[in-house]
Amino acid sequence: MNGYELIAKVAEESREEMVARRRDYHKYAESGWFEMRTSSLIARELTNLGYEVLMGEDVCNPEDRMGVPDEKELEESYERAVAQGADPEFVVRTRGGKTGVIGILRCGEGPTVAMRFDIDALGVYESDEADHKPMAEGFASVNYGTMHACGHDGHATIGLGVAKALMAVKDQLHGTVRLIFQPGEEGVRGAKGIVMKGHLDNVDYFLSGHISKHQADDPGVFVANSYGALATCKYDAVYHGFAAHAGGSPNSGKNAMLSACTAVLNLQAIPRHGGGATRINVGRLIAGSGRNVICDEAKLELEVRGATAELNDYMCQHAERILKAAAAMHDCTVDIKLMGSAIPLKSDAELAERVRKVAEEKMGLVHDKRDTFKSSGSEDCSYMMQRVQEQGGQAIFMRLMTTMAAGGHNRRYDFGEKVLVDGVKIYAGATLDLMSE
Amino acid sequence: MNGYELIAKVAEESREEMVARRRDYHKYAESGWFEMRTSSLIARELTNLGYEVLMGEDVCNPEDRMGVPDEKELEESYERAVAQGADPEFVVRTRGGKTGVIGILRCGEGPTVAMRFDIDALGVYESDEADHKPMAEGFASVNYGTMHACGHDGHATIGLGVAKALMAVKDQLHGTVRLIFQPGEEGVRGAKGIVMKGHLDNVDYFLSGHISKHQADDPGVFVANSYGALATCKYDAVYHGFAAHAGGSPNSGKNAMLSACTAVLNLQAIPRHGGGATRINVGRLIAGSGRNVICDEAKLELEVRGATAELNDYMCQHAERILKAAAAMHDCTVDIKLMGSAIPLKSDAELAERVRKVAEEKMGLVHDKRDTFKSSGSEDCSYMMQRVQEQGGQAIFMRLMTTMAAGGHNRRYDFGEKVLVDGVKIYAGATLDLMSE
Amino acid sequence: MNGYELIAKVAEESREEMVARRRDYHKYAESGWFEMRTSSLIARELTNLGYEVLMGEDVCNPEDRMGVPDEKELEESYERAVAQGADPEFVVRTRGGKTGVIGILRCGEGPTVAMRFDIDALGVYESDEADHKPMAEGFASVNYGTMHACGHDGHATIGLGVAKALMAVKDQLHGTVRLIFQPGEEGVRGAKGIVMKGHLDNVDYFLSGHISKHQADDPGVFVANSYGALATCKYDAVYHGFAAHAGGSPNSGKNAMLSACTAVLNLQAIPRHGGGATRINVGRLIAGSGRNVICDEAKLELEVRGATAELNDYMCQHAERILKAAAAMHDCTVDIKLMGSAIPLKSDAELAERVRKVAEEKMGLVHDKRDTFKSSGSEDCSYMMQRVQEQGGQAIFMRLMTTMAAGGHNRRYDFGEKVLVDGVKIYAGATLDLMSE
Amino acid sequence: MNGYELIAKVAEESREEMVARRRDYHKYAESGWFEMRTSSLIARELTNLGYEVLMGEDVCNPEDRMGVPDEKELEESYERAVAQGADPEFVVRTRGGKTGVIGILRCGEGPTVAMRFDIDALGVYESDEADHKPMAEGFASVNYGTMHACGHDGHATIGLGVAKALMAVKDQLHGTVRLIFQPGEEGVRGAKGIVMKGHLDNVDYFLSGHISKHQADDPGVFVANSYGALATCKYDAVYHGFAAHAGGSPNSGKNAMLSACTAVLNLQAIPRHGGGATRINVGRLIAGSGRNVICDEAKLELEVRGATAELNDYMCQHAERILKAAAAMHDCTVDIKLMGSAIPLKSDAELAERVRKVAEEKMGLVHDKRDTFKSSGSEDCSYMMQRVQEQGGQAIFMRLMTTMAAGGHNRRYDFGEKVLVDGVKIYAGATLDLMSE
Repeated sequence: MNGYELIAKVAEESREEMVARRRDYHKYAESGWFEMRTSSLIARELTNLGYEVLMGEDVCNPEDRMGVPDEKELEESYERAVAQGADPEFVVRTRGGKTGVIGILRCGEGPTVAMRFDIDALGVYESDEADHKPMAEGFASVNYGTMHACGHDGHATIGLGVAKALMAVKDQLHGTVRLIFQPGEEGVRGAKGIVMKGHLDNVDYFLSGHISKHQADDPGVFVANSYGALATCKYDAVYHGFAAHAGGSPNSGKNAMLSACTAVLNLQAIPRHGGGATRINVGRLIAGSGRNVICDEAKLELEVRGATAELNDYMCQHAERILKAAAAMHDCTVDIKLMGSAIPLKSDAELAERVRKVAEEKMGLVHDKRDTFKSSGSEDCSYMMQRVQEQGGQAIFMRLMTTMAAGGHNRRYDFGEKVLVDGVKIYAGATLDLMSE
Repeated sequence: MNGYELIAKVAEESREEMVARRRDYHKYAESGWFEMRTSSLIARELTNLGYEVLMGEDVCNPEDRMGVPDEKELEESYERAVAQGADPEFVVRTRGGKTGVIGILRCGEGPTVAMRFDIDALGVYESDEADHKPMAEGFASVNYGTMHACGHDGHATIGLGVAKALMAVKDQLHGTVRLIFQPGEEGVRGAKGIVMKGHLDNVDYFLSGHISKHQADDPGVFVANSYGALATCKYDAVYHGFAAHAGGSPNSGKNAMLSACTAVLNLQAIPRHGGGATRINVGRLIAGSGRNVICDEAKLELEVRGATAELNDYMCQHAERILKAAAAMHDCTVDIKLMGSAIPLKSDAELAERVRKVAEEKMGLVHDKRDTFKSSGSEDCSYMMQRVQEQGGQAIFMRLMTTMAAGGHNRRYDFGEKVLVDGVKIYAGATLDLMSE
Repeated sequence: MNGYELIAKVAEESREEMVARRRDYHKYAESGWFEMRTSSLIARELTNLGYEVLMGEDVCNPEDRMGVPDEKELEESYERAVAQGADPEFVVRTRGGKTGVIGILRCGEGPTVAMRFDIDALGVYESDEADHKPMAEGFASVNYGTMHACGHDGHATIGLGVAKALMAVKDQLHGTVRLIFQPGEEGVRGAKGIVMKGHLDNVDYFLSGHISKHQADDPGVFVANSYGALATCKYDAVYHGFAAHAGGSPNSGKNAMLSACTAVLNLQAIPRHGGGATRINVGRLIAGSGRNVICDEAKLELEVRGATAELNDYMCQHAERILKAAAAMHDCTVDIKLMGSAIPLKSDAELAERVRKVAEEKMGLVHDKRDTFKSSGSEDCSYMMQRVQEQGGQAIFMRLMTTMAAGGHNRRYDFGEKVLVDGVKIYAGATLDLMSE
Repeated sequence: MNGYELIAKVAEESREEMVARRRDYHKYAESGWFEMRTSSLIARELTNLGYEVLMGEDVCNPEDRMGVPDEKELEESYERAVAQGADPEFVVRTRGGKTGVIGILRCGEGPTVAMRFDIDALGVYESDEADHKPMAEGFASVNYGTMHACGHDGHATIGLGVAKALMAVKDQLHGTVRLIFQPGEEGVRGAKGIVMKGHLDNVDYFLSGHISKHQADDPGVFVANSYGALATCKYDAVYHGFAAHAGGSPNSGKNAMLSACTAVLNLQAIPRHGGGATRINVGRLIAGSGRNVICDEAKLELEVRGATAELNDYMCQHAERILKAAAAMHDCTVDIKLMGSAIPLKSDAELAERVRKVAEEKMGLVHDKRDTFKSSGSEDCSYMMQRVQEQGGQAIFMRLMTTMAAGGHNRRYDFGEKVLVDGVKIYAGATLDLMSE
């Protein structure tokens, strides 16, 4: 039995273990920077398998995290994690939202292969309908308002399956494996800090991907080469003014709502760009305390996007200037906070071709009829890929195809669990190939 | 002992009873259209005293109420009222927010004298500091977030004291007494409906007033002639658009936030009026569901004011047109709802003078050094006064001066309870004078 | 014949001379900073009468003038003045818009009495209808688009009549006379600079006024005490951006029109003031060069007003901040230029009463039935009065009543010339009284 | 000598005549709907050559013209045309802006070949620098502010050269030739009306093109297949309000400037479209009469664009709605007028290939190294091409390459006149080929 066959065997034999693990993660869903229970269990498993494990500030400097919830919420989440069965030994290192885990396997000289698996859930209320499978089979989220509606429970599970399979072929590997379990992908908040910590430096090959809905009448289980997605920045802007009685002395106030509203309108007036698509949206605006009080605080939640990193930068620069000018306009101040960011995905065709070939020829998997897959939305894995590519390495973002009960971010989302086994075969098979030399 | 002396005696002897009643109302504070416990207790007392009592739809047609909370809140409030000791016999008539009570005393031929006492609390979180007297003496509000921070607990108590005192001099009265206990004065929501029901028709004399802070070094306990206050209209405007993904197809959305923001800015551009002061304020704006979703709903809470009813009408007409045009601007729709309104106060000097004289000469009370008192803010008692004056009657709005721990609407508000006795003397003394003929 | 009788005689005998002079000024109307021909003729007359004469930079430092036209226009205007009969000796000192004249008469010890006569015309196209008297009698403006439609031709004429009358009673005067012929009153541009030059320092009494329409059935020919008029500031704001092709690369542009438009809207949102009336108006907006070019220049002409100098300052501060923030909003720059300003008029009642008495008792003139006259509009004479009053002097602004063919600023404006004689009597009579001591 | 050789000979021999004609048109440049002199001379030449000639309302119904200047300007232009040597016989038919000429040559059975040559100049001030060739050689525009800065003088000249050449090979032609000399291409105002008149119905082949700058080191003199250009609509929107004194009674006004400014801002907020590029620009805004007057009229000149006709329609619908809502916002009215429109160019590859082959093989001309040429800007020839293509015909838009002194629309624009001869060869050669069958 060669290495590829061994990997396949491990993957197949892990099927039940993986399904159970995925359902456990699903039931105790944790959203960005709250993945404390999840991180502790991943760290324990990696440790048990024999991986060198990084946690807490070794994964990401706290100040490089974006869109971190407030202290009180983090502490409540920590208590919940402990109560819901977090591993006591490891969970302490996640306190304060220092989530995420990296497992390292050193196998002497050879290339470094890094993989990214994201682990966070979403702020979605899971369906409680009887025919929603997680409900029917008892693994629907018990954390009300938090749900794995984007398959990251599957991604984390595949990552641990890969860890196990690679350990089984350890002797045939040359070089270093880095398995990155990333927090806070939703809202594109977590990847950049891990890049800043240096974990994507000196990487020769980088593999990542996302569970996606398969095409009808297409037996394909993966697309090796995925690209696209708009670059984006997410901001919160809070305007501070001064309250006053609207009848008696409106002149004593500083109207934060006027600043916010003129910002909303003028942001739309960022010129369309001759070089490609751009986007701007203020999705939420909360302002004021009472009808007869000059509004003294207004909060905007907004995002910009661009077809390229440059177009997104263009939007960011204009948006930040406009947000500030709108404050000055009505004698208010504004706090602008970057809550997340991503750049477009760009897979290396050569690596994609190589991974495809291994999966088809060595692992016996069928490729989707489409050669490439254009992503919509945004994915902060893009920062990891960019760093690898800048330094001469190759990177791909793949699509792992399976059945799906409903679209991503939907409260009835659920995916066919067969993808867990396929996923392990693809990642681990590719890694074996890349590290055989 | 003449009638005036008898009134004074009853007032003095009721001091403790009134203090206890005021503190009970304070403890179980109920805001506009929720005054169910309060109404039931007022109705019971009036009935016990021998008054003819009107409640529910006999006080105000439900559809003439403005700014009524939703059904669910009304029902919860009803349950709370029952749990907190509402009178079971009377409280049923208030279910659904049909609050307010009118007590009538018929004494044969003679003028009709109406009085208005408002009974609702505010949406204020009462201070829990140990030196806040209601806290120290155990009558701070147990209804979290609701507080009698404007003295209406005192007004209601004075009203019942007047009812008792007048009953004591019933034989000397000629004509009809109408004691109106009005709900929903805060937000100027309740008076107009009572006027529309006809309770201010055929009134010869109308007395009303408000507890106010006395001046340092001024022994005066009342001002008979108060005027002013701006006319006002309060609106809620809800914009409805259509949600869409802000990255994928912003063009499929209809952006309710853009309608709301352009409304906010353009409302400010209603021309200043050459004929006098006007005001416009959007005090609250809540819009949108998520950062990356085109906003499909936005709610504005706004108000306009004018130095006269005409100036206020001018503002209303412009505001309504602008609110609608802002909807059309971004292909949205808007629901505009009038949530409250008031006109300026105008006291009749002749009646004020007569009441002053009675209070000074017959009741032995000292008038404030100021002949008149200019009110700020808005007061919907103005509608009652206007109706009386239109039909040839006379009306006044008085100020009852006392010590005060903090300003109106402040969480540390509290007033010197001596005003309860003074108040009964003024109202009841004046009524005796007016009905002696 | 006493001094008052002598003044009356001179005034009556000057009637034809004054009518001719007024019509000459009317025919060769010159607007603000263009009053070169007019200034030269005034200077010649004052010189001939024996006055000490100040012109050019002795009247006002060039940099203290507001709203000065550009060099080219000033030069064209100078050439026109010369061609239309300016006095060659004096006109040279007005070149470059250094208009205005001051005549001084020193009569030993005694109070200083200053008078202000404004001399500029308006940018109005005079009626060419046959029944418009200046047309019918051949003195309609030959300077197309410039017209004395506010009576300053009369003011200047009265000023010279006063100069002549006072010279006739010189022996009876004690103190100093200052006759100020002010340029650029329209647009409130000229007074402040003359004040800054010190010409209103150490003035004991200050007289000024305006020709106004008499009341039907009121034989009165003057009101000694006029007050009111809003404080105001006039601004020009020019936004500079960067042009770009609107189809090809709108992103390369900086859109000055967007800055201008957001300024216009946000200026309206300066909070109404609890302390009194305020005004804001952008009266003109000129922006852009072509339909398909991103606008690179936009000019606003605006004004603010306030019932008091403080309210006007409040508006100025807000307006200037908003104008600048609007530039920053779209990455443009803005040049803001103060084009004129005035404060409210406030006449001293004591001086008004004294002047009234002299006019009635010594000059035989009938006072208007109104004791005081409230002015609307703005008048920069207010700055002169303020300086005098600050230093302990007294100042009045009078109304000289006469018939009027149409309202001020109308193209059919014309006034009954009898006011010229009355005006001389009032000013000169009052001066004699003030300087007799 | 075959037909192609004959055409080449006629073209070469017409060189001087064409240069002279082009320079004459250049010198007496006429912009859109003013091309009266030009039209008269074209009509005379076509008549002399033996063409059937259509003018005036036979070319386009007056009401189908877009962006027509006002009557007064049209009349002044007519007088100028007459004064500058228009042909008296033909110019009368252009009076009132009914410009444009169609020449028809009927040669029995066979296909209909239509060609379009645009004839209008631009509102550009031609350079008067000595080294600007038209200046140096005496043919710079004598119509100040109007200049052939886009080569339409060359297009018109080529059209007449084609007319002459085709007449020389008339015996070899089968079918019908339609030579369309179109007015008002600048601002995309003239083509649509000609299409509406039916002149593009039943056309089998349609040829058109534009003089363009050749590439350095590319000997090619033409590109047969040009495409692209954004769809566009041009609008004028005039807001009507009501004037009032900004100090005295701003409330009596209806502020057209506020409507205009809120329109400008909200137009920018038309959502970016997920389906492709869109553009919006308000290029000019003229509003108001005086600083202290509430603005009663404001004019916007704007345009929208889209990568496809559908995207442009999307922009038009939103823009029109917003323009109207902005009027309603401030109680004003608005007149919206479509001033021009175009759709994207789409050349038929088959026809382009055929034309290229004839030009290369029969006329000996070298094709540009680029197979296709992407146009920017907008071109209303697109409407003609669309009509031909809808009815089953084929259409191309070509590029005629030559040297250029400066870019299009620049005041130093000038082109190498060799293109006149090449142009005749290409058009006439292609026509002979298409009509030889």
